[in-house]
Amino acid sequence: MLENKNQEKTDLESLGEFGLIDHLTQQFTIEQKSTIKGIGDDAAVLDFKDNKTIISTDLLIEGVHFDLSYMPLKHLGYKAVMVNLSDIYAMNAKATQITVSLAVSNRFPLEALEELYAGIAMAAKIYNVDLVGGDTTSSQTGLIISITAIGEAKDKDIVYRSGAKENDLLVVTGDLGGAYMGLQVLEREKAVYQVNPNNQPDLEPYSYIVERQLKPEARRDVFDLFQKLEVHPTSMIDISDGLSSEILHLCKNSKVGCNLYEDKIPLDPTVISACEEFGIDSTLVALSGGEDYELLFTLDQKEFPKIKGNPNLTVVGHMTAENEGAHLVSRNNSKIPLTAQGWNSFAKT
Amino acid sequence: MLENKNQEKTDLESLGEFGLIDHLTQQFTIEQKSTIKGIGDDAAVLDFKDNKTIISTDLLIEGVHFDLSYMPLKHLGYKAVMVNLSDIYAMNAKATQITVSLAVSNRFPLEALEELYAGIAMAAKIYNVDLVGGDTTSSQTGLIISITAIGEAKDKDIVYRSGAKENDLLVVTGDLGGAYMGLQVLEREKAVYQVNPNNQPDLEPYSYIVERQLKPEARRDVFDLFQKLEVHPTSMIDISDGLSSEILHLCKNSKVGCNLYEDKIPLDPTVISACEEFGIDSTLVALSGGEDYELLFTLDQKEFPKIKGNPNLTVVGHMTAENEGAHLVSRNNSKIPLTAQGWNSFAKT
Repeated sequence: MLENKNQEKTDLESLGEFGLIDHLTQQFTIEQKSTIKGIGDDAAVLDFKDNKTIISTDLLIEGVHFDLSYMPLKHLGYKAVMVNLSDIYAMNAKATQITVSLAVSNRFPLEALEELYAGIAMAAKIYNVDLVGGDTTSSQTGLIISITAIGEAKDKDIVYRSGAKENDLLVVTGDLGGAYMGLQVLEREKAVYQVNPNNQPDLEPYSYIVERQLKPEARRDVFDLFQKLEVHPTSMIDISDGLSSEILHLCKNSKVGCNLYEDKIPLDPTVISACEEFGIDSTLVALSGGEDYELLFTLDQKEFPKIKGNPNLTVVGHMTAENEGAHLVSRNNSKIPLTAQGWNSFAKT
Repeated sequence: MLENKNQEKTDLESLGEFGLIDHLTQQFTIEQKSTIKGIGDDAAVLDFKDNKTIISTDLLIEGVHFDLSYMPLKHLGYKAVMVNLSDIYAMNAKATQITVSLAVSNRFPLEALEELYAGIAMAAKIYNVDLVGGDTTSSQTGLIISITAIGEAKDKDIVYRSGAKENDLLVVTGDLGGAYMGLQVLEREKAVYQVNPNNQPDLEPYSYIVERQLKPEARRDVFDLFQKLEVHPTSMIDISDGLSSEILHLCKNSKVGCNLYEDKIPLDPTVISACEEFGIDSTLVALSGGEDYELLFTLDQKEFPKIKGNPNLTVVGHMTAENEGAHLVSRNNSKIPLTAQGWNSFAKT
């Protein structure tokens, strides 16, 4: 996990809870005008003036959401922030603050938490969000990360899941399936490593999809893109569980149906070749893979000229009447009902 | 944990993540004007208009912060909310919303989570806060609860840890040490039960302190009391770790010292008798016991007439120059330096 396995490690116990918080958070500065009081009191104080306050929270559990055997702690810290910011951007809002709570077992030395916080700090700096609070405690087993992201938006800019209308276009940012295929590569290499620890994996051909898994980026740029293009989505959600599950969320909340066209789903060539290598259907990966943190939104057809040809945006379908249901229109033109095959963390595998 | 151990249990897996969230949150309604959008989107949307937004977060871990062998799940849900609201009240703010994230292992049936949410719902109703978001996932071992509390306050009303001045009075609400002694009673009864499961404990003589441990109340009333008495504390903190640790936080943040008078520390008669029974020093319990969720604040001496004789408030000392340090003035008039003996969750016990 750490670069130098021989360096001397510092026990968390020697710092105590308050010392640990002070130590880990000293690198964070306040950059947002809306942050009145950050870390160091019972609560943070924020001032959004005429803007609305946007709040989202996520809990990441070792062994369920991440595997430290191939996820470097710095990447994990970065990704944990991305997962949360993605929810704020999915409201078409600006992310402004985060709180980070950690539970760690004694098997983690201070240096491991420093790595984790280095990733959190990097994400906070790049995405311009202030760390304003949190909690640090012990766990009896693994690492637990709980992040709350806070943002702000003008009332007129906020995009809910519930505004999609019949005939609206269904649009996705970026490409899909990369994070899932990156995970397949990492899990295969882990299995190889367990058999022969001297085997050095060559991840170079998979660098795009491995990075999609280990260091995803939330689509902050899409907020600016919408402003620039002067488009206003009618509904939006981030793609954390897979395209299929997210489409069903939009349909349910907006009381509409949907036709998704298989041949329109944007896939990176690396994803397609990895799918061939692993013998997995690439459409299934895009539909159910998850963790891509792209945005899925609907748009009035009248706005199509504004997004036409934009390399960041792909029209993948259109919304229909609710009673028509949500379907995948396959390459051979058959209609297959979409099902929420999103990852079920309660499945007893 | 559940009233009827023989009733049929429902697997979490059969509901899936989204079904579970829907099921558990259907009992919650939106009561706060500031809640524009609660559960059911990527993030919640809140509107605090001219008021400041207050945010606090806490993480509670099974085996570290609670023991389900004597903590009923409904009480746990209630207490988890209290722990967080207490931080908002400690800013002299009004609590308005919460988010609740849970990680549970498969050993919990749906009915157990319903109990937990019944406690959360009761707390939300009594304290008038809206549940506006969260996350529900699996854990490989125990139960993990992460709550973020959100509140609002007028700028002029907010009380930080940093405003205490030399000669200010140090004031505590309610009485101290009850939660810790309640825990001692519960742990003793657990040990007795483990030896002889037929032994029915008589907790009646300890009902006050057991309730302080299992069902603490956050001091929402103090905000109203301050308004009524027209007092404005110069600094404030909630007593979660113990009086000693909290005083040191105020001193450090306000750059002052403190004299705390042992004979002024408010103790309930039940705490005193339990301390005698267990052979524990009651002052030590108040200083280091924690979990009382009372408020500790400082007040300009000129305001003393306004609080004099108020049964909710006890003057326990006064602030001094920073270089005088923070001391307990004992009953025999010796000065003992205060140390942060707050519970260290990283201690390898």
